[in-house]
Amino acid sequence: MFSELVIPSRTIMTPGPVEAHPNALKAMTSTILGQFDPAFLTIMDNVKEMIKVPFGTKNQQAFAIDGTSRSGLEAALIALIEPGDKVLIPAYGRFAYLLGEICERAKAEIKYLEKDWNNPFAQEEIIQAIEEFNPKIVTMVHGETANGQMQPLDKIGAACRQRDIFFVVDMVATYGGVPIFVDDWCVDIAIGGTQKCISVPSGMSLVTYNSRVEAVLDSRYQKELGLSKDERNDHHISSNYLDLSQLQRYWNSERINHHTEATSMIYALHEGLRAVINEGIENVWARHQLNNDALVAGIEAMGLGFFGNMDTKMPTVTPILIPEGVDDGEGVRSMLLDVFHVEIASSFGDLKGKVWRIGNMGYSSRRENVLQVLGALEAAIIYCGGSVKAGEAVNAALKVYQV
Amino acid sequence: MFSELVIPSRTIMTPGPVEAHPNALKAMTSTILGQFDPAFLTIMDNVKEMIKVPFGTKNQQAFAIDGTSRSGLEAALIALIEPGDKVLIPAYGRFAYLLGEICERAKAEIKYLEKDWNNPFAQEEIIQAIEEFNPKIVTMVHGETANGQMQPLDKIGAACRQRDIFFVVDMVATYGGVPIFVDDWCVDIAIGGTQKCISVPSGMSLVTYNSRVEAVLDSRYQKELGLSKDERNDHHISSNYLDLSQLQRYWNSERINHHTEATSMIYALHEGLRAVINEGIENVWARHQLNNDALVAGIEAMGLGFFGNMDTKMPTVTPILIPEGVDDGEGVRSMLLDVFHVEIASSFGDLKGKVWRIGNMGYSSRRENVLQVLGALEAAIIYCGGSVKAGEAVNAALKVYQV
Repeated sequence: MFSELVIPSRTIMTPGPVEAHPNALKAMTSTILGQFDPAFLTIMDNVKEMIKVPFGTKNQQAFAIDGTSRSGLEAALIALIEPGDKVLIPAYGRFAYLLGEICERAKAEIKYLEKDWNNPFAQEEIIQAIEEFNPKIVTMVHGETANGQMQPLDKIGAACRQRDIFFVVDMVATYGGVPIFVDDWCVDIAIGGTQKCISVPSGMSLVTYNSRVEAVLDSRYQKELGLSKDERNDHHISSNYLDLSQLQRYWNSERINHHTEATSMIYALHEGLRAVINEGIENVWARHQLNNDALVAGIEAMGLGFFGNMDTKMPTVTPILIPEGVDDGEGVRSMLLDVFHVEIASSFGDLKGKVWRIGNMGYSSRRENVLQVLGALEAAIIYCGGSVKAGEAVNAALKVYQV
Repeated sequence: MFSELVIPSRTIMTPGPVEAHPNALKAMTSTILGQFDPAFLTIMDNVKEMIKVPFGTKNQQAFAIDGTSRSGLEAALIALIEPGDKVLIPAYGRFAYLLGEICERAKAEIKYLEKDWNNPFAQEEIIQAIEEFNPKIVTMVHGETANGQMQPLDKIGAACRQRDIFFVVDMVATYGGVPIFVDDWCVDIAIGGTQKCISVPSGMSLVTYNSRVEAVLDSRYQKELGLSKDERNDHHISSNYLDLSQLQRYWNSERINHHTEATSMIYALHEGLRAVINEGIENVWARHQLNNDALVAGIEAMGLGFFGNMDTKMPTVTPILIPEGVDDGEGVRSMLLDVFHVEIASSFGDLKGKVWRIGNMGYSSRRENVLQVLGALEAAIIYCGGSVKAGEAVNAALKVYQV
C-alpha cells in the first residue's frame, strides 16, 4: 500500500534546512537509550557544554528544546513576558514579525521599530528607541534569512544591560556560521538553530541564557501537577511544553521528569557540534566566509545583482536579484531541482518573485557545492531565456579559492 | 575534548521510549530534503494517511507535531480552550494531572473527577459527572502508563457527542499497541505517541481530529505576522508553535510556511508506521497481547504480585509489586541495567518505590525480550536478597508461546 522510502539525492543551497553532516546522520542509527539511562545523561551533559561554543558563552544554562527553531524563540520570549509587558522589536526583515507574532500571543505591549529591508539598523537608532519606549525586553533577529542582512549587536546589548532591560536575540541562522559572542554582547537569551550552520537535521532549537534570566525562571517555576500539587505559582509560564523553568530542571542534575527527550536527535546534535568543535569554531567561520566570497564573486561575474547592502550581508545567505527574462524565477528554481538536483530558495513577502536566496550553511558550505550551484544556475538561466555573462561565474569562484 | 558517541546496547522494557524499529533508524541516515521539496511533500502526504490507521479514523486531518508527546496534548487542548472554558478531567492516574496542568495554564475552569489508581472509571460515573458539570471539553487518558490501567471510552464519547461536548483523549501509550477506534468512539481529538508502540524515536507527537474541531480551528485561525498583517483574529490560539490551525495549513495543500519540518524524524515515522501497516494492525495488536500474556504468566509464576485490576490492565504496561527484601527496588533496576543491559521502569508519586513497570511496546514487544527480562529479573531479585520461585518464570512464558 505504501511504498518504501526512497530519498533522492540533493545539493541543498538554501538558508536551511541544509545537508546534515554524515556523522550526524550515522549517529541517528544508534539504538535508543532510556531518557534517564546514565549513558544518555552523560551525552546530554556533553551536548550542553558543546552548545555553548558557537554561542561564545560561559553561561551555566545551554540546552536543546525538542521543537524546531521557532519553539526556542517562543520558549525564550514567554519565559520573560507576562501580559502587558513592553517589548521593543526592531524589524529589518520577515522574521522580526515572527518574534512579534509570538509576543502578541503572549499578550505583550509591542512597539516595532521598522525600516526597509536593505540594511540592518544603526545601533544608535535602536538605543534611542529604547530610551523613548523603555521596554522590559528588546528582541530582534541577528541574521535575517529573508533578506540576508545581519545586525551588529554589541552596543544594543550593552545599552539594554545598563538599563536592566532583557535582550533576546534570534541567532537561528547565524549560530555556528558567523562569530557570535553572547557574553560580550550582553545577550540575555540567545536562540540557535540546528538545521543550518551546524548541519544537524531540523527538529530541535538551542537556547542559552544567563543568571539574570535564571532568576526570572526561578521566580516563575511551577512544578507540574502529577509530580506535586504543592508548588503552584501565580506567575507561572503560559505553556507547559515550552516552559524553560521546567526544561532547565530536566537538563540539570535535578532531572525532573518533563518530556521524553528526543534521543536520536540528541545523538545527531552531539555529532554535529563535535564536528564543528573538531574543525575549530574559527575555522568554521572562515570556511563560511571563504565560500561566501567565492559565491558572491561568481554571481557578480555572471552579471547578476544583489539585494541589499553587501557590507552588512550575512556570509551565510546571498539574496540575488532575479534577472529579466525568467519571469518570477520559479522556472529556474524548478529546473535546478528537477534536473540538477540543486535546491535554492525563493523569498518572502515583497521580495517573492524578485529575489532568489542562495544559502551557504553548515555541511552544505563546501567548495564543490558552491561551484555546482554557480554552474547549474548559469545554465538554467540561459535555458529559461535569461541572459548572463556565460563561462565567467565558476572561474571567478575558482580564483577566490586559488585552486 | 569531546569523545566520539558510543551508545551501549540496551533491551528496553519500559513504557517508553522503547527500541526503535531498525528500518526507522536506517531511514534517518537518508539525506535531508528541503521542506517544500516535492519529494518530501509526497512523504508527508503518505505519513498523513498512515497515521490514521492505528487511530482507526477516516478523519481528514492527521499529522505529526514536531515536539514530544506532551506537545501534542498541549496543541490539542489549547486549540479548543479559551480562558474560562469548563473542562472535566476524569483522573485515574498521573498523566490526567498533566492534562490538568496544561488546561490550567490555558486558564480553563477545571473539574477533576478523582479515584484511586487501581481501576479506570465505570463509564456511567463519568457520564454522570458530565451531566452535573456540563463542560465544554472532557479530556482524559486512554492508557495510564503510571499505573497500567486502561479506560473504556465508547460510551463516554457518545455521551459527549450527544451534548455537543468535545472529547479529547491522550492515546500516547496505547496508539499502535491496542485496538483504537477514534471514529466509533466519538473522540474529537486523539493524540498518539511515536516512541512507544510504533517504534519510532521520541521527538514527535501524532494528532488526528474531526470536522467539529476543524470548524473551531477555522474560527480561530490567525495568519502569522511576517506572512500577512491582515488576517488578525481576537480568538487566536495562545501559542504560535503549537497552533493546530497553522499546522494544518502546513500539512495540507495550502503549505503555509510555519516551521521547518523535522525531515529525518518524518523519515523514521514513515518507516515505523509502514512496518506496522505491513505487519497488519490487527496482528500488531495480537502480538502485544501475546507478549503481555507471556510476561504476566512469567511474573505470576515467579510469585510476584501486580498492582491494580488485571482485567483492565493495559497489555502494553505491567505494574509489578516490588517484593520484600529488595528495599525500594532501585538496586534491582540498576543491576538489570548495568549487568544485563535491560531497562525496566520505576513509577511515580505514591507508587514510587512500590511498583516496577515493565513495558511491552512496539519493537521491544518481542518474544526474546520478554524471555530475557523475566530471566534477568528473577536473577537480579535473588542476587539483591529478595525471594522468588526460581526457575518457573521463563518456562511459564514459554508455555504461553507454545514453543
